[in-house]
Amino acid sequence: MDVDIGNALASVASPGVSRDSLERLDEQVADAHERIETGMAEGEHGYAALNLPERTDPDEIRAAVEPVADAEALITVGIGGSALGAATITDALDSDTETVYLDNVDPAWVSNRLEGLPLENTAINVVSRSGTTAETLANFLVVREAFEDAGVDWTERTIVTTGDSGPLRDLSDRHDLPSLKVPDGVPGRFSALSAVGMVAAAVCGHDLEALLEGAAAEAETLTGSLFDCPAYAYGATAYALDARGAGMNAMVPYAESLETYSEWFAQLWAESLGKDDLGQTPLRALGVTDQHSQLQLYRAGPRDKVVTFVTTRESEDRSIPATEVEDLAYLGDASLGELLEAEFEATEASLAAAGRPNVRVELERVDEYELGGLLYGMEAACVLAGELYGVNTFEQPAVEWAKNATRGLLGGGEFEEAEAVAEKTELRIEQ
Amino acid sequence: MDVDIGNALASVASPGVSRDSLERLDEQVADAHERIETGMAEGEHGYAALNLPERTDPDEIRAAVEPVADAEALITVGIGGSALGAATITDALDSDTETVYLDNVDPAWVSNRLEGLPLENTAINVVSRSGTTAETLANFLVVREAFEDAGVDWTERTIVTTGDSGPLRDLSDRHDLPSLKVPDGVPGRFSALSAVGMVAAAVCGHDLEALLEGAAAEAETLTGSLFDCPAYAYGATAYALDARGAGMNAMVPYAESLETYSEWFAQLWAESLGKDDLGQTPLRALGVTDQHSQLQLYRAGPRDKVVTFVTTRESEDRSIPATEVEDLAYLGDASLGELLEAEFEATEASLAAAGRPNVRVELERVDEYELGGLLYGMEAACVLAGELYGVNTFEQPAVEWAKNATRGLLGGGEFEEAEAVAEKTELRIEQ
Repeated sequence: MDVDIGNALASVASPGVSRDSLERLDEQVADAHERIETGMAEGEHGYAALNLPERTDPDEIRAAVEPVADAEALITVGIGGSALGAATITDALDSDTETVYLDNVDPAWVSNRLEGLPLENTAINVVSRSGTTAETLANFLVVREAFEDAGVDWTERTIVTTGDSGPLRDLSDRHDLPSLKVPDGVPGRFSALSAVGMVAAAVCGHDLEALLEGAAAEAETLTGSLFDCPAYAYGATAYALDARGAGMNAMVPYAESLETYSEWFAQLWAESLGKDDLGQTPLRALGVTDQHSQLQLYRAGPRDKVVTFVTTRESEDRSIPATEVEDLAYLGDASLGELLEAEFEATEASLAAAGRPNVRVELERVDEYELGGLLYGMEAACVLAGELYGVNTFEQPAVEWAKNATRGLLGGGEFEEAEAVAEKTELRIEQ
Repeated sequence: MDVDIGNALASVASPGVSRDSLERLDEQVADAHERIETGMAEGEHGYAALNLPERTDPDEIRAAVEPVADAEALITVGIGGSALGAATITDALDSDTETVYLDNVDPAWVSNRLEGLPLENTAINVVSRSGTTAETLANFLVVREAFEDAGVDWTERTIVTTGDSGPLRDLSDRHDLPSLKVPDGVPGRFSALSAVGMVAAAVCGHDLEALLEGAAAEAETLTGSLFDCPAYAYGATAYALDARGAGMNAMVPYAESLETYSEWFAQLWAESLGKDDLGQTPLRALGVTDQHSQLQLYRAGPRDKVVTFVTTRESEDRSIPATEVEDLAYLGDASLGELLEAEFEATEASLAAAGRPNVRVELERVDEYELGGLLYGMEAACVLAGELYGVNTFEQPAVEWAKNATRGLLGGGEFEEAEAVAEKTELRIEQ
């Protein structure tokens, strides 16, 4: 990926960061890079994720999915980091395989998603590192039952990705399922480029080597200066803008195929940096759609945001038919792609003209190679930002409390968190 | 809708609002309500939207869609407020009619969405007040051509909703298409309960009367005190929390069917209140999915957010099959609905325990009546908040700049905004 931070400079935007400030920040970037390199070299928790382009074995993943390689549909059962990486990749790329992600436990929705799938030719991809994630295991039990009800042997169509031990590992061993391991030292939100994110891509027939090569090329750029490394330029700029008042970061791809990528980025950024009362809040948006929804706020609301555009230099196009209506004649001389491009440039300029900071991330096109680079680049940007904030990027302690309370409420053990639920303060205004 | 603001009180959360402050704020609410009532009575621009439950004629909408009432699929061509209200309703409710919303101009995506639709039995719903919206008109021209290429007469399958004049009105007259009028005085984001939002619902066979009755019941609650009116309680609390530091409002429905509602709310809130450097930024999230993505940030990041939960008291359920795995036995005693409910209560308590403000919006269930109430209630909440901020709730001047620049770039006239695009400040970091 290439990054253009020109519209984040103090000469353009407020908040903005001056070139002098960037030069000073670059000394911190050099130190942070040293820390990151050490973490990578020693395979430390979290930092180990940045070694995935070398560590992940595409052959192993393809071998595991071989029994279902001709599946018409794929149900991935996982939540958070166990779903978003995979969904980002398969939603971005074309495939004949229909993909369903069961990442919620809404009963009506789960039933709807399962209905109409050709179960006899559907694969199941179940992902949970601990093997105890309540939502994932509940959904997996539901999916298993649906297969049994349809007279389809789920054990012949299921691939498991989990840790070395736990209920899902036991179950996988008992039924002799093809299984893959969630790599050690890699938090879920950093696992897109491991089996966690790539089993679905393999079933859909995507080019796993190209995904990893794109990521490896991005890894090559990690150096001690933000001026030489797109990922660090992005992470350092986002951090610097947050410190200057841009507490929000709106991720706005100008490609529908990258809509899920925005969700993936939102998890990466929120869960990694949101701690110790710190962290920039990710906003998920989409160009051009949200020009008609969020742009008013981005351009004229509080000066508390940076907008990140993601654009591609190459893409499929479709011409706009000419029309007899004079006022619309200009459209007939253009294509949808040209309209999309003009809307992007106009929106970018519109924010700059209003002094609102924005950053452009450019991809060549949306394919495996570029996507691998984008995912790796944003992970590296996030790790750098975590160093600059001084937070523990790779933990997520605030998620545990609600997990314990849930389990307690459902009778899955004694958890004091469950008691707090009954003590809710009420001030009800009823219809 | 019912609203519970207990967890937004200063005794629970920081930022939070004390009961004394709410009492004082209620005097401003009384004044604002008087302004709103006057605006409604005189049919003033914007305020007129709150009269829609009485103004909208379901028979007229049903008559317009009668020629396509048996359509297998419906393509709605519109963007922003011309799409989100309709999509919120049809995505929330079950129907046998497949719905496609062309609210973006990404060429590959538009082509994909059109592929595989049974065009000979597909209806087209094109919506643009001005009749000149570039994205909508471009997509409409593309859709028309696709129908022509398939040998299907689009003029027999198209319903137009537009203003009194403009290219789309001309075109509708020329081809004698069934057409409806965007009501006067109703900005797009407030038009869900007019033909703009309800044509799609009518084609899908939803109960238009129930939508309007639910909205009318909500309108009945508008009174001079936030303590008697759920909509005002919501709007006033959101405003008060913003004033105390919660510059973001995360909308988190615990129902997949309400995911699009979050997008609708995001437009309503952002475009109405985001001006004069003011306005609370809406975040779109979804329970339980985002517990594994955003909750870490919401609970432990900066104290700059209020979380709004939307829950239902009644819904379809699905039991979780029992399992032989001991550690998961507790799940087999529950249902997906009970798990969803426990996760919601746990998350709400988790935020309260960390002193993070949150508000609960309760619906009886997701049906036409309750949805009408929710949409109307949030619109009234937004109008109230606009009064409290003192902004012009019903305009969106910041969107115009980019529209002009786009048109200029495409050769659709002379616009000085287009020149700014060429003057971009660059600071590129390339791979």
